[in-house]
Amino acid sequence: MKFGVIGAGRIGKIHGGNVAARRDSEVVYVADADAGAARALADSTGAQVASVDEIIASKDVEAVAICSPTDTHADLIERAARAGKAIFCEKPIDLDVGRIRKCLEVVRSAGATLMIGFNRRFDPNFAALRERVAEGAIGELEIVSITSRDPGPPPLSYIARSGGLFRDMMIHDFDMARFILGEEPVAVSAMGSALVDKGIGQAGDIDTAVVIMETKSGKVAQISNSRRASYGYDQRVEAHGEKGMIHVDNVRETTVEMASSQGFTSDKTLNFFLDRYDAAYKIELDAFVGAAKSGAKPRPDGDDGLKANILADAAYQAWKTKQRVAIE
Amino acid sequence: MKFGVIGAGRIGKIHGGNVAARRDSEVVYVADADAGAARALADSTGAQVASVDEIIASKDVEAVAICSPTDTHADLIERAARAGKAIFCEKPIDLDVGRIRKCLEVVRSAGATLMIGFNRRFDPNFAALRERVAEGAIGELEIVSITSRDPGPPPLSYIARSGGLFRDMMIHDFDMARFILGEEPVAVSAMGSALVDKGIGQAGDIDTAVVIMETKSGKVAQISNSRRASYGYDQRVEAHGEKGMIHVDNVRETTVEMASSQGFTSDKTLNFFLDRYDAAYKIELDAFVGAAKSGAKPRPDGDDGLKANILADAAYQAWKTKQRVAIE
Amino acid sequence: MKFGVIGAGRIGKIHGGNVAARRDSEVVYVADADAGAARALADSTGAQVASVDEIIASKDVEAVAICSPTDTHADLIERAARAGKAIFCEKPIDLDVGRIRKCLEVVRSAGATLMIGFNRRFDPNFAALRERVAEGAIGELEIVSITSRDPGPPPLSYIARSGGLFRDMMIHDFDMARFILGEEPVAVSAMGSALVDKGIGQAGDIDTAVVIMETKSGKVAQISNSRRASYGYDQRVEAHGEKGMIHVDNVRETTVEMASSQGFTSDKTLNFFLDRYDAAYKIELDAFVGAAKSGAKPRPDGDDGLKANILADAAYQAWKTKQRVAIE
Amino acid sequence: MKFGVIGAGRIGKIHGGNVAARRDSEVVYVADADAGAARALADSTGAQVASVDEIIASKDVEAVAICSPTDTHADLIERAARAGKAIFCEKPIDLDVGRIRKCLEVVRSAGATLMIGFNRRFDPNFAALRERVAEGAIGELEIVSITSRDPGPPPLSYIARSGGLFRDMMIHDFDMARFILGEEPVAVSAMGSALVDKGIGQAGDIDTAVVIMETKSGKVAQISNSRRASYGYDQRVEAHGEKGMIHVDNVRETTVEMASSQGFTSDKTLNFFLDRYDAAYKIELDAFVGAAKSGAKPRPDGDDGLKANILADAAYQAWKTKQRVAIE
Repeated sequence: MKFGVIGAGRIGKIHGGNVAARRDSEVVYVADADAGAARALADSTGAQVASVDEIIASKDVEAVAICSPTDTHADLIERAARAGKAIFCEKPIDLDVGRIRKCLEVVRSAGATLMIGFNRRFDPNFAALRERVAEGAIGELEIVSITSRDPGPPPLSYIARSGGLFRDMMIHDFDMARFILGEEPVAVSAMGSALVDKGIGQAGDIDTAVVIMETKSGKVAQISNSRRASYGYDQRVEAHGEKGMIHVDNVRETTVEMASSQGFTSDKTLNFFLDRYDAAYKIELDAFVGAAKSGAKPRPDGDDGLKANILADAAYQAWKTKQRVAIE
Repeated sequence: MKFGVIGAGRIGKIHGGNVAARRDSEVVYVADADAGAARALADSTGAQVASVDEIIASKDVEAVAICSPTDTHADLIERAARAGKAIFCEKPIDLDVGRIRKCLEVVRSAGATLMIGFNRRFDPNFAALRERVAEGAIGELEIVSITSRDPGPPPLSYIARSGGLFRDMMIHDFDMARFILGEEPVAVSAMGSALVDKGIGQAGDIDTAVVIMETKSGKVAQISNSRRASYGYDQRVEAHGEKGMIHVDNVRETTVEMASSQGFTSDKTLNFFLDRYDAAYKIELDAFVGAAKSGAKPRPDGDDGLKANILADAAYQAWKTKQRVAIE
Repeated sequence: MKFGVIGAGRIGKIHGGNVAARRDSEVVYVADADAGAARALADSTGAQVASVDEIIASKDVEAVAICSPTDTHADLIERAARAGKAIFCEKPIDLDVGRIRKCLEVVRSAGATLMIGFNRRFDPNFAALRERVAEGAIGELEIVSITSRDPGPPPLSYIARSGGLFRDMMIHDFDMARFILGEEPVAVSAMGSALVDKGIGQAGDIDTAVVIMETKSGKVAQISNSRRASYGYDQRVEAHGEKGMIHVDNVRETTVEMASSQGFTSDKTLNFFLDRYDAAYKIELDAFVGAAKSGAKPRPDGDDGLKANILADAAYQAWKTKQRVAIE
Repeated sequence: MKFGVIGAGRIGKIHGGNVAARRDSEVVYVADADAGAARALADSTGAQVASVDEIIASKDVEAVAICSPTDTHADLIERAARAGKAIFCEKPIDLDVGRIRKCLEVVRSAGATLMIGFNRRFDPNFAALRERVAEGAIGELEIVSITSRDPGPPPLSYIARSGGLFRDMMIHDFDMARFILGEEPVAVSAMGSALVDKGIGQAGDIDTAVVIMETKSGKVAQISNSRRASYGYDQRVEAHGEKGMIHVDNVRETTVEMASSQGFTSDKTLNFFLDRYDAAYKIELDAFVGAAKSGAKPRPDGDDGLKANILADAAYQAWKTKQRVAIE
């Protein structure tokens, strides 16, 4: 499967490298506004530099990996869909739910394959939790608890165009909650504050937040986010049910434990999301290539992208208005 | 210190036994509506059976341990306060906040020592967490997360007169949240359902609940409750802050781990609250005797009891009205 | 059951206190060369001070707890056996195997109940491991691994009369190995050195040692000892077999874990043997009282004491002669 | 760096694949007695099939990776050394210590770079342990404990030509012990039996073994091996010293923990050595390429290979003769 990679930044490099490393796929073109970045990724993957127009127009290109800034996603998805490409797009489709809906209309009419990059679904640990829950290992699911904390806050310049904590960071957790609940949340309450960086508060955003949600059948979910964790990237999920609980713990740097007069000390968690989700990105690509080849519906698809954004919007509104927000 | 123990049920036996085992205290009288229960506890502690009136009137009795049903607490506290006794009373003071306030007025005018039995504050694990947080081990506190799950639901007859999950079960977690936050919550949101036992739902109560709270300075707390946990009594607390996180895990039956073709299996958690909090009850009594002797203000005191009830009421209202509830 | 406690030192206080706390037993006499120590223990247990002769002669005394120095054990056992007392004696019976054999002859002819204080058999963790092995949880047992490390070395004055590391410290591990193996070792190899305290080496002893043993059927055991462990009292046992492995880990002071930029740190192990084995001493006494009342053979009995000493002697010889030593 | 890979079996595929995946190295030739295996590996690495003679004679080939059966290693090393190639050879150099010495003579005269494939030194967990010990994190090292258990025994046909447990399996642990001790063992005692598979015993070998060793300065080491572990590939190392202990635990398949009425269950260990040591093989190759390019002495080198074999021989002799064996 021949790929055009649009966007040669941090995440473009990951997907481009993974495409190039597979036996059944290759990167043929790389596009990026930054010519040097495009050149570097093209060289390391054996591809050529091209413009976005060239990639969309190329008959060789069967699939595109959209790794460019968020505000370009919806347009690129539409263009690629109309050109008959299979589309892998990093989350989110757009920050505006209306724009997402229009984009998905285009995808639907074009009959295009669209997969959204909620990479955590493919983490072997979270995937195992979800599979066991789905198989009934804990009987009826009752409570989902998700903790996500970044090692440190992004620069304020990033915060300004991020869409805010709920749409930028907690969106992964909304998707994870839906993934595990197997049922749509119908209400969201949220609380949050700027405790990590006052500048984040001055920019109208928060860096610390807790959310609760419930589904029609009465299942509940709780999400805890912080833009800071001194002990490394903190990514935990717990599912509690009738017959038991399944918990996914963090991944540590090594399995070394040091015992001394200070107690027993083990390593910090894997600190960088690209390390933490290294395997997830490869498995995600595998799922995309499989879906694109077979024509099977990929998951997470555009609708999953939409629904996570709807929850993020609801949480934002719940936080801003200090009201519980119902999801239609 | 000479004690009168009022109530010779499960919790009365714990406190009576602990009073009798100390070198500096003794049980002199035991009262219970059930004469057999009173006799048994009196025998095992070397005390005499007496009526409540006799205990209150006795000049020998320096302190009372109120272990009788909830609806007797406020009256007994008032009578003992007026009689000049030091008072240890099991939580809650009353289910009605107005009644609690009146009772605390009486205690205040009498200048009586009143300590409320939030035993978990004295658990060595939770106490160590709180002490380290207070000492600044994690810098500024940001998020408190509390998980409490009972091994199984109580009988429906108990549910009916319990005051509901928030006042009966989560009240411990409200106190724990206040204990660790070191600051009063100013708002509560709640969601919950009856997933464990439909009868609980039919009785107008819930058995599964999640709550979020925030303080004036923007700290947040989340509480997760279930009346069921197949793996034993689940009692965990986590405090996250600027410089790190402190987590208290459950206590297991043994330190045995079995490795087999099924994986690595360790024991369930201590399944019964009297086992889990065995040490806490002793340390709690120590604190009470210390305060009663020295005249120092005990903690948790009547005001702590009141504030936990206020939070429970707010959570109940938040759940019922589907609104965030502000605490005045 | 009426006890005479002989020896009112650290271990005498433990056993005396436990006897006094039971409903079915009491301390009637306490003897100790140090009159103050005897008085203190007698007072705290409600007993009277007496001489050893008085205890042996007393018709009231049904059982003796021998907690005096090692070199008095064998004589006291013999006298108590002849006087028809049930006997609980701290390990070892004697440092000399010949003397032990003679002593056990006397016990046998007298038909006395004799139990030896290998307290670790009664630790709930080790007992659970042994029970599961005996029940076949790991199928045929293949390898037993024991790690025992003291927090720090005893004073040199103690070392001098201790009988050396193998007879004083590793003897517990020899008993534990026998307890779990369910079969007698037939050969011992040993290596060791004085790494912790040069004075121990100058006294002809060692403070660091490793031993391997094998049984007739080919099971193997390994023991690792050190007189030092910076992280607390280290007591671990592992049994490996056909179908799996069972591991007993240390007991920590609390279940608190602190995560920071230094990693994840949990508490040291319980640092003092009296804390670590607090429950074991109570259960041990329970077993003794049960055996003494019913006339059932107690375990560990005199023969267990003898066999542990034989293994300790063999290990000593193996270390000294740099030869593997066969056990007859 | 251009590689010739000799041997296209399981381990040849690993090293060949890793060479091909690096930017600074490539596989130019693959040789194997099995033409199909050679072809498959050549195809997947973009190399050509060649004979061993052709590889040795080729001026293109700068380095050889010797992954053929043990009995070919010494000859191939000598030929490659004389031809001026840098040599990476899987352990062991030979089963015969005399043959190894002769081979190393040839390597020495040729001034060739020779690295032996003790892959475990490069495992990030064991490497971290060693580094911390070397940096003094636990002060003076006192006891090294190594546990290695394979998931299951190899076929009897393999056992027959393996050189026996000590030379085939425990040799990794002898190297690991030397790696951590930083000092040579001067004596070995061993015990072992055939408990897993009687056929192994009938073939004159064992499948369960424990070994103890000591160094001149009195440090001790213990090794525990089994050809069976129901819970996955078991690879643990512990170093105990003056100031603490460092322990490396197994790597689990996921970080998922399931809590139920059966207790808390986590995954088996990574079950296959190629998975367990996947990262180690890559880092090992990195070290080899670095040494070959810079001309720096690689570690582990031929001398490390020799010394591990000497220890394995000594352990074999100790087991056979039931004597402690001194190492000259």
